Amino acid sequence: MDLLLTLDYDGVTPLWRQIYSQLRERIVAGQLEGNMRVPSSRALAHALGVSRTVVLAAYDQLMAEGYLHSRPQAGLYVVPGLMQFAAPQAAAQPTPAPREPAHTLIDFRPGLPALEHVPARRWGQLAHAVCRDASPRDWGYHGPEGHSAVRRSLQAYLLRVRGVRCQPEQIVMTAGAAQAFVLVAQACLAPGAVALLEDPMTAEIRALYAEVGARCVGVPVDANGLDVARLPGGLTPRLVHVTPSHQFPVGGVLPIGRRLALLDYARATGALVVEDDYDSEVRYEGAPIPALQGLDPERVIYIGTLSKMLAPALRLGYAVLPWPLVAAVRARKRVLDLHSPSILARFIDEGHLDRHLAAVKRVYRKRRDALCAALRQHAPQASIGGASTGLHLVARWPEHIFDDQLVARLAANGVQVHPVARHALDAAAHTGTLIFGYGHLAPETITEGIVRLVQALH
Amino acid sequence: MDLLLTLDYDGVTPLWRQIYSQLRERIVAGQLEGNMRVPSSRALAHALGVSRTVVLAAYDQLMAEGYLHSRPQAGLYVVPGLMQFAAPQAAAQPTPAPREPAHTLIDFRPGLPALEHVPARRWGQLAHAVCRDASPRDWGYHGPEGHSAVRRSLQAYLLRVRGVRCQPEQIVMTAGAAQAFVLVAQACLAPGAVALLEDPMTAEIRALYAEVGARCVGVPVDANGLDVARLPGGLTPRLVHVTPSHQFPVGGVLPIGRRLALLDYARATGALVVEDDYDSEVRYEGAPIPALQGLDPERVIYIGTLSKMLAPALRLGYAVLPWPLVAAVRARKRVLDLHSPSILARFIDEGHLDRHLAAVKRVYRKRRDALCAALRQHAPQASIGGASTGLHLVARWPEHIFDDQLVARLAANGVQVHPVARHALDAAAHTGTLIFGYGHLAPETITEGIVRLVQALH
Repeated sequence: MDLLLTLDYDGVTPLWRQIYSQLRERIVAGQLEGNMRVPSSRALAHALGVSRTVVLAAYDQLMAEGYLHSRPQAGLYVVPGLMQFAAPQAAAQPTPAPREPAHTLIDFRPGLPALEHVPARRWGQLAHAVCRDASPRDWGYHGPEGHSAVRRSLQAYLLRVRGVRCQPEQIVMTAGAAQAFVLVAQACLAPGAVALLEDPMTAEIRALYAEVGARCVGVPVDANGLDVARLPGGLTPRLVHVTPSHQFPVGGVLPIGRRLALLDYARATGALVVEDDYDSEVRYEGAPIPALQGLDPERVIYIGTLSKMLAPALRLGYAVLPWPLVAAVRARKRVLDLHSPSILARFIDEGHLDRHLAAVKRVYRKRRDALCAALRQHAPQASIGGASTGLHLVARWPEHIFDDQLVARLAANGVQVHPVARHALDAAAHTGTLIFGYGHLAPETITEGIVRLVQALH
Repeated sequence: MDLLLTLDYDGVTPLWRQIYSQLRERIVAGQLEGNMRVPSSRALAHALGVSRTVVLAAYDQLMAEGYLHSRPQAGLYVVPGLMQFAAPQAAAQPTPAPREPAHTLIDFRPGLPALEHVPARRWGQLAHAVCRDASPRDWGYHGPEGHSAVRRSLQAYLLRVRGVRCQPEQIVMTAGAAQAFVLVAQACLAPGAVALLEDPMTAEIRALYAEVGARCVGVPVDANGLDVARLPGGLTPRLVHVTPSHQFPVGGVLPIGRRLALLDYARATGALVVEDDYDSEVRYEGAPIPALQGLDPERVIYIGTLSKMLAPALRLGYAVLPWPLVAAVRARKRVLDLHSPSILARFIDEGHLDRHLAAVKRVYRKRRDALCAALRQHAPQASIGGASTGLHLVARWPEHIFDDQLVARLAANGVQVHPVARHALDAAAHTGTLIFGYGHLAPETITEGIVRLVQALH
């Protein structure tokens, strides 16, 4: 048998690999048929003008992959049945990338921080230092709760800044707060369990509870957050989900009286309280209000994130758990992705997080003030709520209904708005209210956005 | 009313905060009762010898938190009903940390790489550079598939090193391979769907398929991997899960004939093939064998990880998906944790991953050779399998049954072994076989471990 191979003797691909590839292609294409004997290594080496070692390397690889097999005393043969059908062409259509908003569209989407103020250089320096100083063990697998140094730093930080009372062992590091809610839903809720939820609340989190089969019951909120007087009697909820520091999306701060009433209700019904504390570090009026968790650490699951304060791309979230839940949530985290990576500890311990918080708070205050001023000037009939904390506020127009049609008309005028009704079980109660995320927008952009909004409303 | 507050005038805590805290404590303790009027700011400032601004700041904070309320023309009053029950003491018992293996125990656990060879300095330098060069947008939220630069780099790498054929849009970055299996199980398997699984296989992955309600059917493996002749007829499986490059745990490399037969079977039954390619980059004999995925990219889901080649702590995994699955897996990833972080791209593009692979391959080859030599010398009756690839091999003793009792006896003699039977549906077929992970052990430790094992067996 003559094997007319074409070798590139000066190429970057090793000769043995060229021989291997071409033989393989011919076997797969059916040009070298099953049970056909291939030339001896000596003969092929001679024919190709290469050393025998080169041919042997190619043959060894083809044997290892099952293309050739050797018959004792008889040489090497092509394994039969390898002729391959042409693989179906991959569909040429990638799924379309999410459409970029048009260049000029001003998007008041809530939940985006001021990305241009991320302490990128500092974070990079620390990442470098942490990698340099890590022990080999640090690079290996960790427990599902995450690196112990990170949890120790976070425990001290949360106590100092948020009044959260826990041991580092009660913390589970998560891939953003999003994963923390998944863990809580999957570890704590059985199908049919009742989950009491603020109405309105973030639609994505409600979907997580619904997905595990929970019966989701809405409790209305007002300008002070959850209306505890309307917590339902005659139910034994498994959990109550609240955003006490800054109700999302309506914006209220839950007063201490309601906090205590909520905890009383939870104790009486045996419910857990899930405290979603997504942006409370940025509080403009007065000092941050301590977390609900500090009032009853054995009743409250505290969930936080550094996506708003530091950067979403880092995917740093955490859950602080009552002791009886620690094992179940850790087990669930292990199933979902073993554990999360993190270099957070030194960033906290060396004071960078505090300094960063102080710096961005000034940035956010200016943006909030610009938004409030623009609303007061151009839309005096709108009432503003939830502006004391965080990166968004709400404004309510008594005379408008922000349905899909109106939202589209506004977008056509260059401003993207976000109706509260989209997050509400009882949508009719919120038809005139918009959420304005301002953390990611410069003051002049904010003003321009409100001008466009008001023009289009008229 | 007299308020005897104790202020530290030279302390680090601001005066307003001291006043706020002490008033709050008294309200909560019931010493300041509900509906009690507090002194005017002017009076309290005078009594304490501080400016009125200081007292107003404390009062504002207490009002914001709902401890005080103002009655028009009448001053500030304590909100009633705030007296707080002592919060139950947090249980003092942390869940016990996983016990460290005793200092002298030699653990042949599979799946651990050589952590002392992690390119920590290089990774740190790149992390620094990537942070420095990132755009603000890079720090924000990404799509669930992960950063596009990372996926582009990975696509080129996988084509070059593993023969994987895909577009970057078909890749979803995951938190380790563990999460990729979760995504595939949740996005592709409905309750009652049949999943054909190699028997034995990693118990944790089998559990993921079982958890979503799949009917898990085992197909035996032999020294060449999945025994395709025993793929069941009369079933319409949704997926077939295989480890073709290095069967886990038995170690076989699936020959091309079986690969084609498996793909034929999958096409005929309409099944997907899940290719778990966890450690194939480290191949000692011949070049790496191309991934199954390259033979039929529209039929095979390819799942890989950098935990073995780089470091587990980085949590870098990926799934390469046939086009029709891209949208469903992305949607599931978004639900579970939005997206994963990553600085992988430059590490690949600048050639560091290739250089690192070449370096650790030498390390692993020495360790494998030490293990094979020790087994041949001290346990000549044991037959070795699966040693051509990866960081573990298996050895089978014809005369021993490695049950819990024997494993405990060996551990008492300073060597932790891992029976294959623990990963098998048909455990009786694997009673004499052990998996030896050697990637994390120095050659002399490996030899010592085998000596201990053989001593204890006698």
